[in-house]
Amino acid sequence: MLARSFAAISKRTSVARRCFSAEGGPYEHRAVSAETLATLKELFGDRVSTAASVREHHGTDESYHAPCPPDVVVYADSTEEVSTILKLCSATKTPLIPFGAGSCRVQCGVTRLQLESELRATGLFFPVDPGADATLGGMVATNASGTTTVRYGNMKSNVLGLTAVMADGRIIRTGSKARKSSAGYDLTRLLIGSEGTLAVVTEVELRLQGVPEAQKIAVCSFPTIQDAVDTCTVIMQMGIPVSRMELMDHKAIEATNKYSKLNNIVSPCLVIELNGTPEEIEHHTGTVQALAEDYSVQRMSWAASEEDRKELLKARHSAWYATMNLVPGSRALSTDVCVPLSNLTQVIVDTQADLEASGLVGTIVGHVGDGNFHVMLPFLHEDEPKVREFSDRLVERALAAEGTCTGEHGIGSGKIKYLRMEHGDSVDVMQTIKHALDPHNILNPSKLF
Amino acid sequence: MLARSFAAISKRTSVARRCFSAEGGPYEHRAVSAETLATLKELFGDRVSTAASVREHHGTDESYHAPCPPDVVVYADSTEEVSTILKLCSATKTPLIPFGAGSCRVQCGVTRLQLESELRATGLFFPVDPGADATLGGMVATNASGTTTVRYGNMKSNVLGLTAVMADGRIIRTGSKARKSSAGYDLTRLLIGSEGTLAVVTEVELRLQGVPEAQKIAVCSFPTIQDAVDTCTVIMQMGIPVSRMELMDHKAIEATNKYSKLNNIVSPCLVIELNGTPEEIEHHTGTVQALAEDYSVQRMSWAASEEDRKELLKARHSAWYATMNLVPGSRALSTDVCVPLSNLTQVIVDTQADLEASGLVGTIVGHVGDGNFHVMLPFLHEDEPKVREFSDRLVERALAAEGTCTGEHGIGSGKIKYLRMEHGDSVDVMQTIKHALDPHNILNPSKLF
Repeated sequence: MLARSFAAISKRTSVARRCFSAEGGPYEHRAVSAETLATLKELFGDRVSTAASVREHHGTDESYHAPCPPDVVVYADSTEEVSTILKLCSATKTPLIPFGAGSCRVQCGVTRLQLESELRATGLFFPVDPGADATLGGMVATNASGTTTVRYGNMKSNVLGLTAVMADGRIIRTGSKARKSSAGYDLTRLLIGSEGTLAVVTEVELRLQGVPEAQKIAVCSFPTIQDAVDTCTVIMQMGIPVSRMELMDHKAIEATNKYSKLNNIVSPCLVIELNGTPEEIEHHTGTVQALAEDYSVQRMSWAASEEDRKELLKARHSAWYATMNLVPGSRALSTDVCVPLSNLTQVIVDTQADLEASGLVGTIVGHVGDGNFHVMLPFLHEDEPKVREFSDRLVERALAAEGTCTGEHGIGSGKIKYLRMEHGDSVDVMQTIKHALDPHNILNPSKLF
Repeated sequence: MLARSFAAISKRTSVARRCFSAEGGPYEHRAVSAETLATLKELFGDRVSTAASVREHHGTDESYHAPCPPDVVVYADSTEEVSTILKLCSATKTPLIPFGAGSCRVQCGVTRLQLESELRATGLFFPVDPGADATLGGMVATNASGTTTVRYGNMKSNVLGLTAVMADGRIIRTGSKARKSSAGYDLTRLLIGSEGTLAVVTEVELRLQGVPEAQKIAVCSFPTIQDAVDTCTVIMQMGIPVSRMELMDHKAIEATNKYSKLNNIVSPCLVIELNGTPEEIEHHTGTVQALAEDYSVQRMSWAASEEDRKELLKARHSAWYATMNLVPGSRALSTDVCVPLSNLTQVIVDTQADLEASGLVGTIVGHVGDGNFHVMLPFLHEDEPKVREFSDRLVERALAAEGTCTGEHGIGSGKIKYLRMEHGDSVDVMQTIKHALDPHNILNPSKLF
């Protein structure tokens, strides 16, 4: 049904070479040949671009990494076209980076907000909300999650199947519309989170959820970050079905007060959302209130109307740009560790102490109901080494606490060394799979390994 | 913590050859050499057995397939020992079939009931219940699910990480204790459901759930199977958080009445379980009751006490043996399709009509909240072709309804042709992965492909 609605939206594919590894060092240089370019132009006409501005746009993201434009950008409109491009790339060993902005089966360039608007009248919604208006293809690539994952899970929980084009141009469909299956290897979940290194995902079969009857949000201010995180942990351990459980430290509140002209108390804060029937919400409100009081909550503001909820969520939603704004002219690194809930308070308390001792500017925000939090660090060029050292210490702390270096952003080029720290010899097994499925290393090379 | 409790339980590994494919035809015959056997005896002493009874036991299962004993059975007590065996098998290209009966990280031979008993005092439980007292290793191999999957998910949702021994003897650890991760390829979920063909899983990190405060079960009898399944569908679509949603057709009720000396009304029946706080259960009870009445429910029996619940669940739990008992001296085949809920009623109604027209004896039971149901078919030797034809038609029906040939049992050797029907060219990609990770095809050969 939705496939039709989105048929007009294109999937953009960059046929590209990558010039530099994450650390700035040079790596294998494979330019697109004149012959390959001519064939692409013959096949795709004016949907092939080598314009500097277009290449620049497809080589830039929200990260602190230096832009790295592809040689050529090709706009493909269908799975079959992606297959044609990959057959050509495979024959010529031309590296390719999938770029998402192309059915509920959605094409992979559909963005989250387009999908939300399409579903509005149906009483259904897609629950993975990473904050930004990401494309569904990009969300598959990184196994995205977000503020509502505590209730509804991440992409792996909410994608039923995929259409993907393999490195040699073969088109496959994985999964089914059934809620569960034990038929063969789970290619769906192997591709989700593979960051475009194993196949180009062109269509995504989404699992939708019913829009809850009612929602209610509490913003709770605590004297210390330890009180805030302990409250989160005990609410989760009680099994209260919260639909959001977000933490902001006092620095994040300070930054968002300034950036979004808000008046929140400058102290660590939990944003807790309940949803369901009004009766269910009423029942859980009392429990949440009592637990927060056990941990010396200073103020709890509840909101149930759409408008008031949006007002309370403003701070959380503007946190990234508000943090960037603390250091004019900065780039920013966001860490992404995720640890078991039983170790979360200690890891956050230690991280905040480390941040203060480091002299760096940073805010802590997180999907703490999942054990996932981000330290957002805006920095000027000369502070990059200090920021990287802080990030190294944080990952070591998270791994010692039996967690992961990345809860939702992926490895990309910035966390390659952490992948080996976390998974040891498993990384060799991952590379064996990569080599078997992409023998010429043409799919998003230099990522993950 | 639980690792210690279970250290004494061994992991049994059969170093084995498989003699025949599922269809009875011969396939590549690779016997264990005298030299390999001598090395095994040197290393493992009296934990190596070639006794006929032991070999027989490790070649027999609950399925209708003919027994196929391994040449030799080795009892390994640790991941390291499994690694030693695999290094030997890899060097000598000796096929190996993992046989589960070895922390919460549990060793893979721990059974579900042992785990349940270990956890009893903790207020926690492991929610995947396939009915039989399976080993956790076996449950990983098939991506098992069961009656409570409708609420808590299957093995893929409830396993955080694995220790596995690869075909060449390398030991890897996958996943972490964090609730989510985007660090590299999802080897955990690739191995879950891989039926021992990619690695030998030796330890499983389980996600446990809090025991709910209260539980309540309803057994609801309907005039037609269509009414029963429609009630299931509408309850699920309303988002009511049932913890069990099981269907039994009138034949299953008849069989279990006879086998377990019960007095249930002989008509299609739903078993619906609610759990949570008493207030939540009260709230949902009213809704479930009203919806069932919309579909002409004939009788609803509610039970909240442990004893009364067990009594009501007796029929569901004895269904397999009660069905076998309908045809003395029979073997039995159980189908396992799973379809989207929106197509479930039609698929079940058509399947029941097909079953009646076929003249076969069979009962229909299922985890219908997931869209998964089983037709249990006890048969005598001469009826085997008819049973297989019925199964073929059922799988075709399920695939046409955008479902899967197996919701929870796996492909094994009996559903190899269905895997190709369902996944087409994706099966080639699966085989590429198999070949990359097990180049000599020594891990559970003749399964899946």
